Amino acid sequence: MDQSIEVQTKEMDSRSMSSSRRHMQNEPYVHKVGLPPKQNLFKEFKATLKETFFHDDPLRHFKDQTRSRKFILGIQAIFPIFGWAGNYNLSKFRGDIIAGLTIASLCIPQDIGYAKLANLDPQYGLYSSFVPPLIYAFMGSSRDIAIGPVAVVSLLLGTLLQNEIDPIKNKVEYRRLAFTATFFAGITQATLGFLRLGFLIDFLSHAAIVGFMGGAAITIALQQLKGFLGIKHFTKKSDIVSVMHSVFSTIEHGWNWQTIVIGASFLSFLLLAKYIGKKNKKFFWVPAIAPLISVVLSTFFVYITRADKQGVQIVNHIEKGINPSSVNQIYFSGEYLLKGFRIGVVAGMIALTEAIAIGRTFASMKDYQLDGNKEMVALGAMNVVGSMTSCYVATGSFSRSAVNYMSGCQTAVSNIIMSAVVFLTLQFITPLFKYTPNAILAAIIISAVLGLIDIEAAILIWKIDKFDFVACMGAFFGVVFGTVEIGLLIAVSISFAKILLQVTRPRTAILGKVPRTTVYRNIQQYPEATKVPGVLIVRVDSAIYFSNSNYIKERILRWLTDEEERLNGASLSKIQFLIVEMSPVTDIDTSGIHALEELQRSLEKRDIQLILANPGRAVIDKLHASNFANLMGENRIFLTVADAVASCSPKLVEEV
Amino acid sequence: MDQSIEVQTKEMDSRSMSSSRRHMQNEPYVHKVGLPPKQNLFKEFKATLKETFFHDDPLRHFKDQTRSRKFILGIQAIFPIFGWAGNYNLSKFRGDIIAGLTIASLCIPQDIGYAKLANLDPQYGLYSSFVPPLIYAFMGSSRDIAIGPVAVVSLLLGTLLQNEIDPIKNKVEYRRLAFTATFFAGITQATLGFLRLGFLIDFLSHAAIVGFMGGAAITIALQQLKGFLGIKHFTKKSDIVSVMHSVFSTIEHGWNWQTIVIGASFLSFLLLAKYIGKKNKKFFWVPAIAPLISVVLSTFFVYITRADKQGVQIVNHIEKGINPSSVNQIYFSGEYLLKGFRIGVVAGMIALTEAIAIGRTFASMKDYQLDGNKEMVALGAMNVVGSMTSCYVATGSFSRSAVNYMSGCQTAVSNIIMSAVVFLTLQFITPLFKYTPNAILAAIIISAVLGLIDIEAAILIWKIDKFDFVACMGAFFGVVFGTVEIGLLIAVSISFAKILLQVTRPRTAILGKVPRTTVYRNIQQYPEATKVPGVLIVRVDSAIYFSNSNYIKERILRWLTDEEERLNGASLSKIQFLIVEMSPVTDIDTSGIHALEELQRSLEKRDIQLILANPGRAVIDKLHASNFANLMGENRIFLTVADAVASCSPKLVEEV
Repeated sequence: MDQSIEVQTKEMDSRSMSSSRRHMQNEPYVHKVGLPPKQNLFKEFKATLKETFFHDDPLRHFKDQTRSRKFILGIQAIFPIFGWAGNYNLSKFRGDIIAGLTIASLCIPQDIGYAKLANLDPQYGLYSSFVPPLIYAFMGSSRDIAIGPVAVVSLLLGTLLQNEIDPIKNKVEYRRLAFTATFFAGITQATLGFLRLGFLIDFLSHAAIVGFMGGAAITIALQQLKGFLGIKHFTKKSDIVSVMHSVFSTIEHGWNWQTIVIGASFLSFLLLAKYIGKKNKKFFWVPAIAPLISVVLSTFFVYITRADKQGVQIVNHIEKGINPSSVNQIYFSGEYLLKGFRIGVVAGMIALTEAIAIGRTFASMKDYQLDGNKEMVALGAMNVVGSMTSCYVATGSFSRSAVNYMSGCQTAVSNIIMSAVVFLTLQFITPLFKYTPNAILAAIIISAVLGLIDIEAAILIWKIDKFDFVACMGAFFGVVFGTVEIGLLIAVSISFAKILLQVTRPRTAILGKVPRTTVYRNIQQYPEATKVPGVLIVRVDSAIYFSNSNYIKERILRWLTDEEERLNGASLSKIQFLIVEMSPVTDIDTSGIHALEELQRSLEKRDIQLILANPGRAVIDKLHASNFANLMGENRIFLTVADAVASCSPKLVEEV
Repeated sequence: MDQSIEVQTKEMDSRSMSSSRRHMQNEPYVHKVGLPPKQNLFKEFKATLKETFFHDDPLRHFKDQTRSRKFILGIQAIFPIFGWAGNYNLSKFRGDIIAGLTIASLCIPQDIGYAKLANLDPQYGLYSSFVPPLIYAFMGSSRDIAIGPVAVVSLLLGTLLQNEIDPIKNKVEYRRLAFTATFFAGITQATLGFLRLGFLIDFLSHAAIVGFMGGAAITIALQQLKGFLGIKHFTKKSDIVSVMHSVFSTIEHGWNWQTIVIGASFLSFLLLAKYIGKKNKKFFWVPAIAPLISVVLSTFFVYITRADKQGVQIVNHIEKGINPSSVNQIYFSGEYLLKGFRIGVVAGMIALTEAIAIGRTFASMKDYQLDGNKEMVALGAMNVVGSMTSCYVATGSFSRSAVNYMSGCQTAVSNIIMSAVVFLTLQFITPLFKYTPNAILAAIIISAVLGLIDIEAAILIWKIDKFDFVACMGAFFGVVFGTVEIGLLIAVSISFAKILLQVTRPRTAILGKVPRTTVYRNIQQYPEATKVPGVLIVRVDSAIYFSNSNYIKERILRWLTDEEERLNGASLSKIQFLIVEMSPVTDIDTSGIHALEELQRSLEKRDIQLILANPGRAVIDKLHASNFANLMGENRIFLTVADAVASCSPKLVEEV
């Protein structure tokens, strides 16, 4: 066989070779576990560091390049647009322009509504769909993501901000805090990406996100009842109990039937459009342009009927013109600095989670690689610039990205097109929104957020993993019956509890021999597997670290006690050997070695021999370093469980 | 073979059986991975819960017992003394009385010194060696631990408390806060035990503790320079730089030579005694009684020479009489409630860590089981009662427990003996301590804490695990150059970072065939193992959860890319099969399934077949539940890597 093994592993350790040679005469052939090739300490450290922070090897393209080429590659790494702009052509542009126009028509009405969720004036939503997509188009590497304000982040930001400042009484301070939070959200995102700490967002489990999103969607939909029913005095709380109380206590003298008629008819229209788009993929553009059509029609209708005089609430005024500068409005000192920072970190992390999830989904659909950390830098830069140009936190939108993808977008140019349309809207069309009824915005938001409730995913989670389902429901009910913060806290806590469980309570299993093979497997999984008399084989299913070493030791001793009790009851032969199958034990630390020593000591007192099977590379290294391998006897470490069993009861194995 | 497999696994799943039968004719025999026996959802949940919180099955003795017997067992579970008191006899008492007297002689001078570390009057140290050991003797289950104040906890408590209240200016409030902290330390300990959350203390790694203890020992020793050199004006900071500055700036007009002579000569005596005890185990009692002898001799010496008139500082006054009640002194309201709580939680956790580590060490030496959670309840109860009887946080002392063990203690009765001696001391002897020079106490503490500096352990940690060594040194230098809090923070952070690394960056390895076996192993560990042409075998070394699913997917794809580049360079045959060895993958969640689906999709695009080898029980269950097993083809899941390789390139394998 012509297999060249990597150079560093070629420096074979003489001990490992000799131990394998030593047994060549004997039958059956038993391959011993020797010491693996020694690694240089510095090399090992470098490898670990690389694996932790640069596992995707982001600098591989820079290898063996001239200096000028490296410079160009560096520019392209920061601004990917210079990488793909050269290959850009008319056919790609055709796809991008259609996609760009479609998502623009979807984003304009959504932006106006989402700004309200964040307790900001409508134009701030549009601002956030103008600058950030432009920045992203230059720096981002996803081809399908559509950038702008999104429902959940708007709600989260609104909730967190109004805990600090009243958005109606102190409008200016509120807005300044919003920009401050946006600034720090961007800084957080860029920093995480720059320090290559992107994996931190992986700590929110998929299940928790599904639950959180669903709960947030319901909360947002409930909030829309205010506009939808035309209620003037509405609760400020967001939990379902308060909202329902608020809705039904105003049923006599608060609902406005004209508003309800307009809202309900257009909501039906929007839902019908969604249904059509779902039934037939060809009509994906129907739900995409339905919101804009609703806005145009309803605005026109209110304008000619002057329904606003009948109590139908309208948008009234959207500031004309593009984003003013807001550099001077960010709090860089004072008590609001810290508050803005805290809110920004939370909102930034959630926005990041959403954007990265979207980016990864579409990258895997079109099979291109996405560098998560580079994406974070792009998203961060876009929000930092955004915070200085009157934008609030923007990120990738689930619904608009899907529309973008289905409309055939090819590159981030579709975001530029969308941005251009928003620019024209801000410059020329905003006054036309004056008579747009709030009920239409409510209907558009309701129909948009319904897509965030992913019942199928929840059912799948229930099927696959019950613990995940608890996390999902916990986050969901936390948001619906509490606040978004409580929901988020529950989601994070449950995700974290799962990690704790994983590291403190690894599984262990008793192995038996699968008939007609030399393979030993978990007897609970393979009921036909049989135990070997006089031998107990335990598999430990995790690295042995300080967080679980005690548990593992105690658990192995309990398996032994249970087995001995069972054997005593059936008066079968006593256990003489305990084989610990270490294949899944990839690493061990000092606490783990201590635990093994204590195990060995306990077993000695009971006249049972400890035997190890297949310890991994790092483990065998450390067993030798700590002298435990000598203590227990190097000849009691085997390559496979079968070898180990053969060594302790050769006769019995043949019988099986 | 007469092996009765547990009842629940006997309900064999027909599919798993039939799939194993189906292949009986074929040669070579390939055992397929069928669905494992289904488990009842509730049963599974109960099993998980039991494994998490009751893995030691604390209620096993209660099974199949009459009600009155259960009541007795319950009492014995809370007060183990009623369990072993019946078997108590004269020979055991002989061991206990010698041990009790020895540790009493050691604890009395230590207590007086340790109380000073906590900025309390000397009698509070003695109080804490009277009540808590009594309570522990009734409720604790360790036979060897010696209860009382310890150096590190005293220092920690003193540091934390003096951050809040000045111990000299506001003596009474300071003491009240100390009792409050002690109360909450006890509550914390008992609660952790009662809720069976004892595993939380396992989150401080052994290495971090070694470093923290060593650093604390040095800090404590440095603090003693004040008494040892007779310096009157001493820094309040504890870092080595401040202390050294304070020491050397007073060298001209601050050191008291008489004090130094007394201190140095007795320190030499103590160290000599230690050395004798270490050289010959028979003389273990020499270092144990040396402190008391020093106190007696030096007190007598100062009394007759009236050296206190020469500037030799003396203890002066120790309150006579046993513990007064302090129930009314605990802050149950006001701003100090929260502060006391916070300090109590930290001090309680550290005290717990120390006590449990001691308990486990000696339990494993004498091979008896220790229920960690029950121990915590006992320690907690003892501190709660202590806080009401003028004691501060007590716990198990390393040095005194070792002496207790070596003096031949048999049960917790040795603690009762010690407590009785302390009682007599408080009642009758305290006035005699008036002329005890502070330098002696300093010498005793220095010689005691030197034992906490475990250089051998640090060397072993360096040998075994470099990362652990960093944690150890981080905690050590944090304490020495910063404060105990900084050191503790570093220790906790590094321990935590290690857990994060463990769950986010699991290892992966490329497997090759070990010559003359059917075993596939990591080619870095076994350089003689050879790769199979056209097949890439990757082993994933961890459960696939949300925290690592993305990393694992990307890492596998990178292994593939690297391998393909290498093959291209050598113009060898292309990779056609990717075998993922899942033996160490013990569980998978929804995010993990998503990652596998994405991997499968990417591989399809590259015309590579995905094959799984030996997925565990939970994994195979979930692969079926999520329909992924059908999606990838059930016939591509094999019991072993050898089977999988045989299926994809039978010819090639025979060649090897």
